[in-house]
Amino acid sequence: MKHVFFFGDGRAEGNAQMADELGGKGANIAEMTNLGIPVPPGFTISAELCLDYLKEGKLPDPVRAEVNEAMARLEEVVGRKFGDENDPLLVSVRSGAKRSMPGMMDTVLNIGLNDRSVAGLAARSGNPRFAYDSYRRFIQMYGEVVEGIGGKGGADNPFEAAIEAMKQKAGVERDIDLTPDDLQSLAQSFKEICRKETGQAFPDDPWDQVLSAVEAVFKSWNTKRAVEYRRINRIPNDMGTAVNVMAMVYGNMGEDCGTGVVFTRNPSSGENRLYGEFLLNAQGEDVVAGIRDPEPIEQMKDHLPEAYQQLLDTCHLLEQHYQEMQDVEFTVQRGTLYMLQTRTGKRTARAAVRVAVEMANEGLIDRRTAVSRVQAEQLDQLLHPAVDPAAEVEALTVGLPASPGAAVGKVVFDAEDAVRRGSEGEAVILVRRETVADDFPGMVAAQAILTSRGGMTSHAAVVARGMGKCCVAGAKEIEVDESQARFSVNGTVVKENDWITLDGSTGRVMLGKVPLVEPELTDDFRTLMSWADEIRLLRVRTNADTPKDAARAREFGAEGIGLCRTEHMFFEGNRINSMREMILAGTEAGRRSALDKLLPMQRDDFEGIFRAMDGYPVTIRLLDPPLHEFLPHESAELDVLARQLDVPRAKLDRIIENLTEANPMLGHRGCRLGITYPEITEMQSRAIFEAACKVAAAGVEVHPEVMVPLVGEVEELRSQEKVVRETAEQVFAEKKRRVEYLVGTMIELPRAAVTADEIAEVAEFFSFGTNDLTQTVFGLSRDDSGRFLPQYVEKGILKINPFQTLDQGGVGKLVDMAVKLGRQTNERLKIGICGEHGGDADSVMFFHRIGLNYVSCSPFRVPIARLAAAQATMQD
Amino acid sequence: MKHVFFFGDGRAEGNAQMADELGGKGANIAEMTNLGIPVPPGFTISAELCLDYLKEGKLPDPVRAEVNEAMARLEEVVGRKFGDENDPLLVSVRSGAKRSMPGMMDTVLNIGLNDRSVAGLAARSGNPRFAYDSYRRFIQMYGEVVEGIGGKGGADNPFEAAIEAMKQKAGVERDIDLTPDDLQSLAQSFKEICRKETGQAFPDDPWDQVLSAVEAVFKSWNTKRAVEYRRINRIPNDMGTAVNVMAMVYGNMGEDCGTGVVFTRNPSSGENRLYGEFLLNAQGEDVVAGIRDPEPIEQMKDHLPEAYQQLLDTCHLLEQHYQEMQDVEFTVQRGTLYMLQTRTGKRTARAAVRVAVEMANEGLIDRRTAVSRVQAEQLDQLLHPAVDPAAEVEALTVGLPASPGAAVGKVVFDAEDAVRRGSEGEAVILVRRETVADDFPGMVAAQAILTSRGGMTSHAAVVARGMGKCCVAGAKEIEVDESQARFSVNGTVVKENDWITLDGSTGRVMLGKVPLVEPELTDDFRTLMSWADEIRLLRVRTNADTPKDAARAREFGAEGIGLCRTEHMFFEGNRINSMREMILAGTEAGRRSALDKLLPMQRDDFEGIFRAMDGYPVTIRLLDPPLHEFLPHESAELDVLARQLDVPRAKLDRIIENLTEANPMLGHRGCRLGITYPEITEMQSRAIFEAACKVAAAGVEVHPEVMVPLVGEVEELRSQEKVVRETAEQVFAEKKRRVEYLVGTMIELPRAAVTADEIAEVAEFFSFGTNDLTQTVFGLSRDDSGRFLPQYVEKGILKINPFQTLDQGGVGKLVDMAVKLGRQTNERLKIGICGEHGGDADSVMFFHRIGLNYVSCSPFRVPIARLAAAQATMQD
Repeated sequence: MKHVFFFGDGRAEGNAQMADELGGKGANIAEMTNLGIPVPPGFTISAELCLDYLKEGKLPDPVRAEVNEAMARLEEVVGRKFGDENDPLLVSVRSGAKRSMPGMMDTVLNIGLNDRSVAGLAARSGNPRFAYDSYRRFIQMYGEVVEGIGGKGGADNPFEAAIEAMKQKAGVERDIDLTPDDLQSLAQSFKEICRKETGQAFPDDPWDQVLSAVEAVFKSWNTKRAVEYRRINRIPNDMGTAVNVMAMVYGNMGEDCGTGVVFTRNPSSGENRLYGEFLLNAQGEDVVAGIRDPEPIEQMKDHLPEAYQQLLDTCHLLEQHYQEMQDVEFTVQRGTLYMLQTRTGKRTARAAVRVAVEMANEGLIDRRTAVSRVQAEQLDQLLHPAVDPAAEVEALTVGLPASPGAAVGKVVFDAEDAVRRGSEGEAVILVRRETVADDFPGMVAAQAILTSRGGMTSHAAVVARGMGKCCVAGAKEIEVDESQARFSVNGTVVKENDWITLDGSTGRVMLGKVPLVEPELTDDFRTLMSWADEIRLLRVRTNADTPKDAARAREFGAEGIGLCRTEHMFFEGNRINSMREMILAGTEAGRRSALDKLLPMQRDDFEGIFRAMDGYPVTIRLLDPPLHEFLPHESAELDVLARQLDVPRAKLDRIIENLTEANPMLGHRGCRLGITYPEITEMQSRAIFEAACKVAAAGVEVHPEVMVPLVGEVEELRSQEKVVRETAEQVFAEKKRRVEYLVGTMIELPRAAVTADEIAEVAEFFSFGTNDLTQTVFGLSRDDSGRFLPQYVEKGILKINPFQTLDQGGVGKLVDMAVKLGRQTNERLKIGICGEHGGDADSVMFFHRIGLNYVSCSPFRVPIARLAAAQATMQD
Repeated sequence: MKHVFFFGDGRAEGNAQMADELGGKGANIAEMTNLGIPVPPGFTISAELCLDYLKEGKLPDPVRAEVNEAMARLEEVVGRKFGDENDPLLVSVRSGAKRSMPGMMDTVLNIGLNDRSVAGLAARSGNPRFAYDSYRRFIQMYGEVVEGIGGKGGADNPFEAAIEAMKQKAGVERDIDLTPDDLQSLAQSFKEICRKETGQAFPDDPWDQVLSAVEAVFKSWNTKRAVEYRRINRIPNDMGTAVNVMAMVYGNMGEDCGTGVVFTRNPSSGENRLYGEFLLNAQGEDVVAGIRDPEPIEQMKDHLPEAYQQLLDTCHLLEQHYQEMQDVEFTVQRGTLYMLQTRTGKRTARAAVRVAVEMANEGLIDRRTAVSRVQAEQLDQLLHPAVDPAAEVEALTVGLPASPGAAVGKVVFDAEDAVRRGSEGEAVILVRRETVADDFPGMVAAQAILTSRGGMTSHAAVVARGMGKCCVAGAKEIEVDESQARFSVNGTVVKENDWITLDGSTGRVMLGKVPLVEPELTDDFRTLMSWADEIRLLRVRTNADTPKDAARAREFGAEGIGLCRTEHMFFEGNRINSMREMILAGTEAGRRSALDKLLPMQRDDFEGIFRAMDGYPVTIRLLDPPLHEFLPHESAELDVLARQLDVPRAKLDRIIENLTEANPMLGHRGCRLGITYPEITEMQSRAIFEAACKVAAAGVEVHPEVMVPLVGEVEELRSQEKVVRETAEQVFAEKKRRVEYLVGTMIELPRAAVTADEIAEVAEFFSFGTNDLTQTVFGLSRDDSGRFLPQYVEKGILKINPFQTLDQGGVGKLVDMAVKLGRQTNERLKIGICGEHGGDADSVMFFHRIGLNYVSCSPFRVPIARLAAAQATMQD
């Protein structure tokens, strides 16, 4: 079996398809070589050897022979000998796994130098400064990387200390002011450091140097950091890394030399123009070290016009060949361009969209490929305001990036203040320990929400995402003192009316007003989305509770509403009073009288939503949260309520005490309410059908789908379905008009999933409530999980946060089972999903695979779902 | 097809196997006839006709013809004509479904009488009183039952009003004092009542009478009450009821007549001796009406010695034939015995055991049959003290029968009081709104527990059942005022130190000291259990947390411990202080120092348990409840704690606030604690293995099984397993001794069930925690479900309370799936169940069917599980 793959002289033994053996870097070097692109010659040692080496602790003899042979070939191509004291062949050794990985050994340059050959290099190059500088750099790099001395430049690094000492002695301030003699003496000090630290002389033999460097690369596969990285990123441990040995070329031999890094297109904007940096007479290291500022790549044209043209041509060739934007490294040595590396360039969402669309328009790729080129999750960046990337900011603290976007506003601690001041046009940010249902109007009125407790799927987070409003949740370092109207973070106190800025995409909380940049939906974006729509099979709906949200979601391409939560409607204005009257009534007659007041308001809401969704289905979920969520908690508010309702305070307390639940998530909510109080279901159904009849009379095409929440047993659904259908018939008779409608259910309890065959006997549609389903399948409260779930993901016990991306191995298994069971009973059953996962790209792929009809997500995630759905279709 | 089945003259067309067609009553009448037992002749109309009739609204002509034919045969056998004015054949019509059912029509007697034939009967019998009394009874019964007039004896009943008027007019007080003329006149009033109520003349034609009565029986199949009963008891609706038409015989024609009901053995004690009641010169009705007190059956010997001997012989024959204790009705007419009905006799648990064992010893049945004859659930009655059945009691209120048994004690409201006074030998009953974990010592010290909140699986209920201690939970009418040390029920106030009596088997709460009877484990009981043990395949373990419970459970036949909860151990004495110190420590070092104090105590506990379970496996569950359960809640207690730990009260409040959870059931508990604080797992493992090594050194055979709770993902288990195994190895090295042990997990989350194949890669055993699994599968908090779950069962939305009997359609499906997946990975995986369902007979049957190795339940339910396991084996 072959383990060493040569490249050089226009021919390579490998190619781009061999990334498994050669790693990403080696495979692309081989590919470039075969394309006739100038690449310094060298060879790649296969990744397969890595594991053998780690097991055996040494390189097998046949491999050593292969390396010898390759080195001989390299000497022949280059025309220099490795270890030649007069004109030495020098090489670099770099790691190169299939996927790049932090924690692995990176690079050792200038291998092959020793006290003798450095003199030869000095003579031959006519540049002793260059030679001794290269030598001292080599020893430091080798010492650090191969021998593990002093880390990578910390304060305790003995090499850095020696440089400082030398500069003091020489009376200079900059490295570059050291003389060749200084550098030579420094090299000797460095060798002494290595001897002291390792107890062994620094290896003078170039063969020792190169083989030790190769082994060091292999060993670095198993460093703690690399292992940890692979575990978390689910990279197999048995892949190993390849090693690239390449003849050195120098960008620092004079004014006809240089080095640079370029993207074939602008990675930030996507513009089709070379983008990057160049440094004349320098090695790549100098850029990293920050000794000199690099110049924009265009200026290379003035310094090295031929090499520049060659670079342009090469980049063009690479793009044509790879049909992708490339990120390349190059060196110009005495006027000659050498490409050191090429890979797919990382880019912003905006650039990704533009590059994909333009490449398709250029004919470089087809539209399907263009659609596959943009990561769906990335689109999130495009749809929200963001902190100006140019602004210098310091985070006061970092919470969870609960709902993306950024916002600036004055701190308020009370939802009512937020409503009052927000409606007067003031920019306020609502800060709460955690939000509860009756904070909703305040959340609507605020620019953004900040909470010190709760997780990614806490009330604040879910509601904010639904509105596309910036939210930082669970910022644990914050101590909120609502009574004093202030919060503090590690000693910094922020008072009411202080300005703060939130970045919901990163979780940052910043003091003061930080400049923001507004989102912009480009034509390229619209084009790409239209291509995605042509491809996808999965329908995309939105979760929207107001006509405004519904309208916005249509702009984003939503094809209906998958979840309209009716409970938020009960918080607005005076409605909450009627709602509370209903809850506290104690008799059916009392409840009915309060419900009668709510009916017209709820009907108006539905009318607006039906109009906004003209022609599309609207799924309305009946009342879901436990009733105590609608009641106040503060003593003063309770006093007010007692007066309003003319109920003794003690009685009110007793009622509330009776409504209190140990585990409200698992309590008296969902259809359990409708079963205890059928009159609530009746009122809501009436509101739905009266609104539907009214808008239908006005020519609106209306498709209501009434959804019964929290069903675990088909009889629950049957009992609620009866109320809904009877009410529908009554309304139709009264209005002398029928509208088509469906009655279905949320599948959000494990029992619903495993008895889906029975439930499908009654339900005309299923909609998976994957938030609650995740909670019950894991036995994990999303409100409480913040304390340990992050640790779980960190420790790799869970690969993902299951509230963000659907847990396919557990929750997904039940979802899949429910789909199969449901369709077994009714093969035309309409099935969707309305949990937060409906807007998560990985989850959308899964939902496509198991055959759902639609996903539904918050308006701002509709484009993500559309793109993910298209990509899922293509993956089939 | 045949629809009418004749019986009489020693031959019947049906038999006991034909209950589907003839109903239970008809089938047994046919069987008795064939056995040569004297039964009045007659015929049974098949249940199959019932549904036809209900669909068509009339009896098909061919059936009428069959009835005619059967009636003609009946006339021939009896020697009288139906409708004959001089010597009429009279018949009774009775319903008889396969299973008896309240709400269905029962009986109409004396059909065939009218104004003319009653005169014939009077003349022929020479007893006008008898004839007219029969007539007026017939009209009333027919009016009520067939024509639906006035219900069954309410105050508005017009027949009763007419009787009252007649008695007033006649100036007598008792029915029996009315003259034949009075009765004749009453009959006419009754006919008038029927005419008025129905608008039609009372039917004089005997054929109209009998056919209408038959139709009324059929119609009664669909009364609301019958339909409701079937729905709740899961009796199919398409079964229908049969109708029995039988020639009348009379026990009220003179002193050589009589009627009675007997059991072939004593249904209360099981003694093998006729048991029942007899009334001379009476119809069965008179017994029901309470006009005369019946005599014990023995006295029949004096009045009607021949008939009595005949009855003894018949009962013996019936028992021999049915091989079961019978419950029979008979009438003696002019010295001749007629059997009207026989069926399997209902009996107490005690009688069931004795009858089964004695019948087996008599050779009437085999041992397997004996084991199948006792309902496992019934055994519960035998294992606890009970309220003396002879005592006259009035319940103050009725709560949930949370843990069976009965107890008398003085009311206390505080767990510490209960501990203090209980340990001084005082009988106290702990009354709480609901109990929390730190009430545990008080619950131990009290005779019984009463709570006003919580359901059948609330903390109080679960803990009480575990201890076999009487508990009434969720007595909603009770308002507990702990601050005033009293509770009130609808105005009645019960103060501290008042005596009360609880009946945990019925939920009754009684004022004062009600006499109790003690349980008694008879030799018959032991014999039956030993027979069950020979049959069963499923092992039965117990849930026990203390050496005392463990020892008791062994007496009841437990074969190991399936669940030893370690958290209760942390409440005793001063332990709670160390536990709180641990929780509040804030650093690992602080936690370790507190854990060091807990280690020796926990080790001692395990030692005691291992000794008590010498030779048997002991499954120990690592710490499970959320930490906040160990902290006090009252402000005064918090002050004390703050002083004890020398922590500022404000800081303590903050820590507690941080530990507070929205849904503790789904929060930071189970293995999630062990993952955050591995040192807890380490301490517990050390205590287990140190104890195991110590008792092993003393010659005890010890099999610890360490159980990791609340696993939802195999990596959780893997991380905890590592800690357990590493600690085990350390202890073994220190003690220079190894013990065999297993590491396994609870399967109590849906995700664990659906990923059981992965979990079985690590777990050496599974134990289903069906309490929590039921909660998560249903999304139903057992603490909160009390408010609506009873309504669910009442309305038939759920057939059973899933916390009592495993929900096979939902939870059971996941359990079954987990068993299959687990065994797929490891076919020798040991699987048990330690939820409350382990002691529920129906659930045990299910666990046997799906192939579990063992069930584990509270000590007092071990015998139930043993018997149910045997019955399950036989059903295979």
